[in-house]
Amino acid sequence: MHAIDLIRRKRDGGEHTPEELHFLVEGYTHGEIPDYQMSAWLMAVFLRGMTPAEIAALTDSMLHSGSVLELSDMPGKKVDKHSTGGVGDKTSLIVAPIVAAGGLFVPMISGRGLGHTGGTLDKLESIPGFEVNLSLGEFRGIVAACGCALAGQTPEIAPADRMIYALRDVTGTVESQGLICASIMSKKLAEGIDALILDVKTGSGAFMKTEQDAVKLAELMVEIGSRMGKRVVALITDMDQPLGNAAGNALEVIESIEVLAGRGPQDLRELCIELAAWMFYLGERVDSLMEGKRLAAEQIHSGRAKEKFREIIRLQGGDTAVLDDPKRLPGARQTLDVVSPVSGYLYSTDTQELGLACVALGGGRKEKDDVIDPAVGLIFHKKKGDVVQKGEPLCTIHHNSEARVADVQRAIGRSFHIGAESPERQPLVRRVIGA
Amino acid sequence: MHAIDLIRRKRDGGEHTPEELHFLVEGYTHGEIPDYQMSAWLMAVFLRGMTPAEIAALTDSMLHSGSVLELSDMPGKKVDKHSTGGVGDKTSLIVAPIVAAGGLFVPMISGRGLGHTGGTLDKLESIPGFEVNLSLGEFRGIVAACGCALAGQTPEIAPADRMIYALRDVTGTVESQGLICASIMSKKLAEGIDALILDVKTGSGAFMKTEQDAVKLAELMVEIGSRMGKRVVALITDMDQPLGNAAGNALEVIESIEVLAGRGPQDLRELCIELAAWMFYLGERVDSLMEGKRLAAEQIHSGRAKEKFREIIRLQGGDTAVLDDPKRLPGARQTLDVVSPVSGYLYSTDTQELGLACVALGGGRKEKDDVIDPAVGLIFHKKKGDVVQKGEPLCTIHHNSEARVADVQRAIGRSFHIGAESPERQPLVRRVIGA
Repeated sequence: MHAIDLIRRKRDGGEHTPEELHFLVEGYTHGEIPDYQMSAWLMAVFLRGMTPAEIAALTDSMLHSGSVLELSDMPGKKVDKHSTGGVGDKTSLIVAPIVAAGGLFVPMISGRGLGHTGGTLDKLESIPGFEVNLSLGEFRGIVAACGCALAGQTPEIAPADRMIYALRDVTGTVESQGLICASIMSKKLAEGIDALILDVKTGSGAFMKTEQDAVKLAELMVEIGSRMGKRVVALITDMDQPLGNAAGNALEVIESIEVLAGRGPQDLRELCIELAAWMFYLGERVDSLMEGKRLAAEQIHSGRAKEKFREIIRLQGGDTAVLDDPKRLPGARQTLDVVSPVSGYLYSTDTQELGLACVALGGGRKEKDDVIDPAVGLIFHKKKGDVVQKGEPLCTIHHNSEARVADVQRAIGRSFHIGAESPERQPLVRRVIGA
Repeated sequence: MHAIDLIRRKRDGGEHTPEELHFLVEGYTHGEIPDYQMSAWLMAVFLRGMTPAEIAALTDSMLHSGSVLELSDMPGKKVDKHSTGGVGDKTSLIVAPIVAAGGLFVPMISGRGLGHTGGTLDKLESIPGFEVNLSLGEFRGIVAACGCALAGQTPEIAPADRMIYALRDVTGTVESQGLICASIMSKKLAEGIDALILDVKTGSGAFMKTEQDAVKLAELMVEIGSRMGKRVVALITDMDQPLGNAAGNALEVIESIEVLAGRGPQDLRELCIELAAWMFYLGERVDSLMEGKRLAAEQIHSGRAKEKFREIIRLQGGDTAVLDDPKRLPGARQTLDVVSPVSGYLYSTDTQELGLACVALGGGRKEKDDVIDPAVGLIFHKKKGDVVQKGEPLCTIHHNSEARVADVQRAIGRSFHIGAESPERQPLVRRVIGA
């Protein structure tokens, strides 16, 4: 088998056999297929697409390019959640403790911020001492000890995905549904889970701007999961405005603690309960989604979810005192309000721009090696449809740099659209795929 | 400007500005854009195509990635010929001396065999001592001295083309009309010519199997040439059977000398006169094609064309005695006939297979670094439509290896199709584009 023949096959719209995809993934991972051939193939895949059978075979090869966690000695189902990313999406920090408190295992491998979206690892690292770089053994040990660990991809987990992702990033081949699907699913299935709930975001703050694209990706991931023998359901959820009221690493940790304490913004709380309920249901802890919601809410009201988060923070080396005293988290030196120039209703937000404003403050990376400032971010005061008075603050900027803030303030001002009428309200969960 | 943005633009079907193409070509040539980005871009170009304006700008950037010959001190028009390649196509060896003898300058930079087709440089190298690797200064000096030089691409000529071609070869991006066009035209225009005749071959022994594809490429090259201020005409010529009777390096040199001496096969002689006539006409040496044909025929009958070839061989270090004693050229140790198993008419030939048979004998390269055996090849005894008797030889194999010849003999046998009726005769020149 020669890489050049496989490049030509995909270029001409052909379908690969599982053996061919395995040859490409193995060859690339072991340095036998050079970057320039892989990138030509990736572009051919981007433009020609892959069938579900091809995506499943690619996922399988990437999954088996490294270690697959073996957790069968732990007594209970292993479940996880994956979000395609948005602005203010801190559900992992809330859902994982809820589900672990409710009796399932949550071996959650997460990522960093990407583009305008935040990343779970970056958020966790704003907790002093919190270690997300665990060895596979440490990760396993913490899952065994408390039912949940929250860590980054180890070198042993799907190394082919890491290499291919890095190449896609510099060759304009990121936004391919088949490649996105294989990347997500290979990492998640390497966790040794039984079931997975997908939170596929759509709207102005999501990577999938249209519901149609989100549904397509969701259907693909559900199909690949089912081809690989896992229970996978996807929720298509609203990302036309930030989730909750906070965006920025430490600010989101504070908001997460609020929700775990039974407070916090209603939309965020509602989505976390919904996601946790699905995990309880797919993990066969309950017989219905309704029961799942009850069980999730119970973990919050009883305080068990917050205590579970404390346990996780402790086992991963973090300062557990932040749970009771959020001032121990990094705080920005200054704040600045963005006020509404007119009265009306908050009609829509350019949510991606709000995410990019957060990055511009130093809360995300423009270049791979940028160092994140965990303290900066935005607090939103209005949700879509809320009444806004002229001069009333729409958003408070938490920043550490006078130099950057003026531009950011202007960009945020442009991202809020105030209308004379209230917009139609969208449900938070727009559709459920695969149930 | 960033390479990644240009990859994305082409990936999404956008059109590049000349500045963007210049940035890509310059960046790649100077090692600032890595192979893996260039190959992703090439695949995007392959699948999305380029507009004529883009191809012209790409050609221009590739052309100016190195030196452009400045021949304006030589008194007369500079013209050249380019063939897209076929089996038995040795017209360069005949046409260049005819046109130089007729008073125009022919600074001809040629290539090596590719796939099933032979290459002018490989053929010339079968002449003992003939040096095709000239410096730009040597090349220029020989053109000045005798009106013609026949050499390979120097490192100074279109280095971007050489680098991009090498990358296309290993990334499945060779067969793109836009990239083929830019590659050919950048090299040819770097010769500092005023006019160019293109011999675009079509049929079973050509790269363009259908006339439609050949016409498309021809139209593109004519348009690019005219956008760049050159007189360019393309002939669509028949490659449904070998041109002339010989395929193989030394055997083709012998046949070329025959034509220069006023003998040789009729089809080859006719095409050479036609090509030379166009060069005289485009180079403004004559006022009509008819006059051009007369002038070309006169160079042969007067012996001037053969003497011009002698001069070229001498100036490029070759053994001029081969012109009068072809036995001085490398000869194969053995010959073997392929005979017809039935009586009938030669109906068609699988000409690409005949070319590959030549390669299999050692007359071409399967791998880049293979050493060519100049002596081996095939002599064809029948043209399409000729009457063939059972047992009569169709072809004589000249070979140096008992081990290889049996397979080759079988493959050649399968490549001749004998029919009960004579096929429709095709004209040698099927169409003229751009006149």
